[in-house]
Amino acid sequence: MKQSKITDFSQKDILSIEDLSPIDINLILNLSEYYVSLNKSQNKKIPKLKGKTLINLFFESSTRTRTSFELAGKRLGADVINMSIEGSSIKKGETLLDTAMTLNAMHPDLMVVRHNESGAVNLLAKKVNTPIINAGDGCHSHPTQALLDALTIRRNLKKLDGLNVAICGDIMHSRVARSNIQLLNIMGSNVKIVAPSTLIPNSIEKMGVEIFHNMKDGLQNCDIVMMLRLQNERMHGSYVPSTREYYEIFGLSKKNLDKAKPGALIMHPGPMNRGVEIDTEVADNMKQSVIREQVEMGVAIRMACLEILNSKRVEG
Amino acid sequence: MKQSKITDFSQKDILSIEDLSPIDINLILNLSEYYVSLNKSQNKKIPKLKGKTLINLFFESSTRTRTSFELAGKRLGADVINMSIEGSSIKKGETLLDTAMTLNAMHPDLMVVRHNESGAVNLLAKKVNTPIINAGDGCHSHPTQALLDALTIRRNLKKLDGLNVAICGDIMHSRVARSNIQLLNIMGSNVKIVAPSTLIPNSIEKMGVEIFHNMKDGLQNCDIVMMLRLQNERMHGSYVPSTREYYEIFGLSKKNLDKAKPGALIMHPGPMNRGVEIDTEVADNMKQSVIREQVEMGVAIRMACLEILNSKRVEG
Amino acid sequence: MKQSKITDFSQKDILSIEDLSPIDINLILNLSEYYVSLNKSQNKKIPKLKGKTLINLFFESSTRTRTSFELAGKRLGADVINMSIEGSSIKKGETLLDTAMTLNAMHPDLMVVRHNESGAVNLLAKKVNTPIINAGDGCHSHPTQALLDALTIRRNLKKLDGLNVAICGDIMHSRVARSNIQLLNIMGSNVKIVAPSTLIPNSIEKMGVEIFHNMKDGLQNCDIVMMLRLQNERMHGSYVPSTREYYEIFGLSKKNLDKAKPGALIMHPGPMNRGVEIDTEVADNMKQSVIREQVEMGVAIRMACLEILNSKRVEG
Repeated sequence: MKQSKITDFSQKDILSIEDLSPIDINLILNLSEYYVSLNKSQNKKIPKLKGKTLINLFFESSTRTRTSFELAGKRLGADVINMSIEGSSIKKGETLLDTAMTLNAMHPDLMVVRHNESGAVNLLAKKVNTPIINAGDGCHSHPTQALLDALTIRRNLKKLDGLNVAICGDIMHSRVARSNIQLLNIMGSNVKIVAPSTLIPNSIEKMGVEIFHNMKDGLQNCDIVMMLRLQNERMHGSYVPSTREYYEIFGLSKKNLDKAKPGALIMHPGPMNRGVEIDTEVADNMKQSVIREQVEMGVAIRMACLEILNSKRVEG
Repeated sequence: MKQSKITDFSQKDILSIEDLSPIDINLILNLSEYYVSLNKSQNKKIPKLKGKTLINLFFESSTRTRTSFELAGKRLGADVINMSIEGSSIKKGETLLDTAMTLNAMHPDLMVVRHNESGAVNLLAKKVNTPIINAGDGCHSHPTQALLDALTIRRNLKKLDGLNVAICGDIMHSRVARSNIQLLNIMGSNVKIVAPSTLIPNSIEKMGVEIFHNMKDGLQNCDIVMMLRLQNERMHGSYVPSTREYYEIFGLSKKNLDKAKPGALIMHPGPMNRGVEIDTEVADNMKQSVIREQVEMGVAIRMACLEILNSKRVEG
Repeated sequence: MKQSKITDFSQKDILSIEDLSPIDINLILNLSEYYVSLNKSQNKKIPKLKGKTLINLFFESSTRTRTSFELAGKRLGADVINMSIEGSSIKKGETLLDTAMTLNAMHPDLMVVRHNESGAVNLLAKKVNTPIINAGDGCHSHPTQALLDALTIRRNLKKLDGLNVAICGDIMHSRVARSNIQLLNIMGSNVKIVAPSTLIPNSIEKMGVEIFHNMKDGLQNCDIVMMLRLQNERMHGSYVPSTREYYEIFGLSKKNLDKAKPGALIMHPGPMNRGVEIDTEVADNMKQSVIREQVEMGVAIRMACLEILNSKRVEG
């Protein structure tokens, strides 16, 4: 793969995987490798964003993603400002934009935005000149999660094309699933969806996936099994009969894992519901589970994304 | 106006505009101009507060003001600690003072304090030796808001004296109004208050303002129209019949704006209730609205205030 | 006392006073003296933790302790990340560990953890390789509080052995009491417990203390009177008849203070309930009360603890 320069990156923002080319994606992954090493060393700081201001604007609460971006920004030497504005809604559309314009007027150099409504971050990015990274919007998109998953896969399987990947569970509400499907398709892999029909959105086959309603068929011949979190608060009534029955049919038990290729990678974006969508022994199986490595890659990916958008801006 | 030195500043704290002389005010505004430029440049950091600790102590929730001070402190190289202590009250007087004394014992170099009760910040400033900036106390005072408004006005109209300024809306509950009236009076401008009688406090005429109950008369011959936020939670019953009627009579519509001088500046401390106290087209009228510039000036003003109090302390 | 080196410190973590030797304790106290001086100087920063990441993980809300650790980390040049995860519980044991493992995967250099359940921090420390400081777990342990109390005592009375110390009030729920009893015993002092029988845990005499049920006998011949906070929310029904009666019998009034040695030190971990466990004049008696000095020592002790654990790790 030819080595691209940071300034070859095609976007002002990182809003959705579908905006990215394979060159963009490889650029981010390659740069991230450097940060993976740095994060393991004694001195984890490199002053690429010295004198810059990063605002983490979270309209939806988050612990790990906010921390991951905060760490990424601080290790690059940026001043990081956290803003948590919960209970806000896209229905107050003008308020969202006014908030964004207000922050924009303070001349931040980068903004990371999470919002509970699909499309909110794109709306905001159109209005401000600060580069924006989407840290998750509604059920729509979570590009840095797909990128950190890709980096984890590439480091373990040495490629991103020609792989069979099963994504299992609550596809309906999952921005992680959507972003991963897009990335894996772009890079030439094959995605299978495994879920009860109540948790599969209507037009998902248009995204270029195969649909399965049981783990046995869905996991067959898979190199990777990617489980999704089942929100307990959505578990009642219409979607799933009970967490116990859900676990029996769609949970990743040792028995279900045997349907995949021997040594298949086990992935989960976290936080896990142990005993609901994943068996605790499977989650902690250090030979196949790369769940902790995903978290580790998250910081590196976010450092790369921040550096790329900042460089692009300064050059541009 | 003669150029003063930072050490000419008369106060240990910045608690209220009425404590400041015209020399003090000009000192802050002049120093802020430098920070306005810095904040537009690539490297926005200058280590004037390196090794210093700034504590942002907020007894009342705030997004923009806290962020503005946090940014100001970080760009000056300070370590910034945010503390949010909501639900607290001046009724627990000793607890407020114990909190302040506790923080004081940690040897911060500067404290920024917001409190929901009028007078709480002054009480606290008497007890601690750390320099304090009042970031808003009850309905009493919000000096950095008035200073950033003054900077915005001076940059647009080239002076602060001899101007006619209409301040419109919920004067009763507004610390922004009080601080602006004081500053504009000190600097030689003329303030008109426009509000329904239910939203005008009893002794406001003693502050040296003219009172109007309709926009037509109040805005006549005005260089500046400063709108105040109407809190929706106070909109029921006694104060205002309905937001719709309020908008019809006291909202800044294009029609009402025509009563002011041609090209009059439109100001608002934010966050705006679009369609309540201000029409959305008027707010976004880029020829006359300086609402976003106010936010931008906010960071610069706070950098200047922090630098002045710190220098004063080190010298003193 | 012979001067030890930082690398003589016996522990990877600081979880409980009972894990520490007198050498460990003196090492921390001696190093803290340097930070007491630093914190009084103009430039309070020293880059011992430059390039390092400190995560403050608080499962229980806290203002002063979190701020004290944040200040300590920042003055040492670390990047500090605050995480507040309230409402969490040890019952979700796996979730606690998953949270810890997730953070561990981000390669922090140090973690400070507070949790509402006794034992939670020890459980976590077993699972992660990051050095951990216990910032308080349930009713179990709060080692940095006991260390800062010891530093305060040593600076005022020039020794830690042969002292008579009365610890008074809600012993039952107090991790502060437990850690102080352990430390004072290790260093050769004598502890008396003064409390109503409802607030004394069953096997407390095994910790090597004398028990008293009235202030007159308990305070006799004491060099130090250490009061504990009475949580108002636990004041109803079973434990205490009323705050007024509690104050009459177990509050530290001027009259009760006269039972102790003349000039006895008055201590309180804060925040105080003035008029409940301590009289306001006694609390503010600047000749005997060292309550504010305790807060000041807190930052120094935490800087020493952070430096020691970090050095140990880098060397080890």
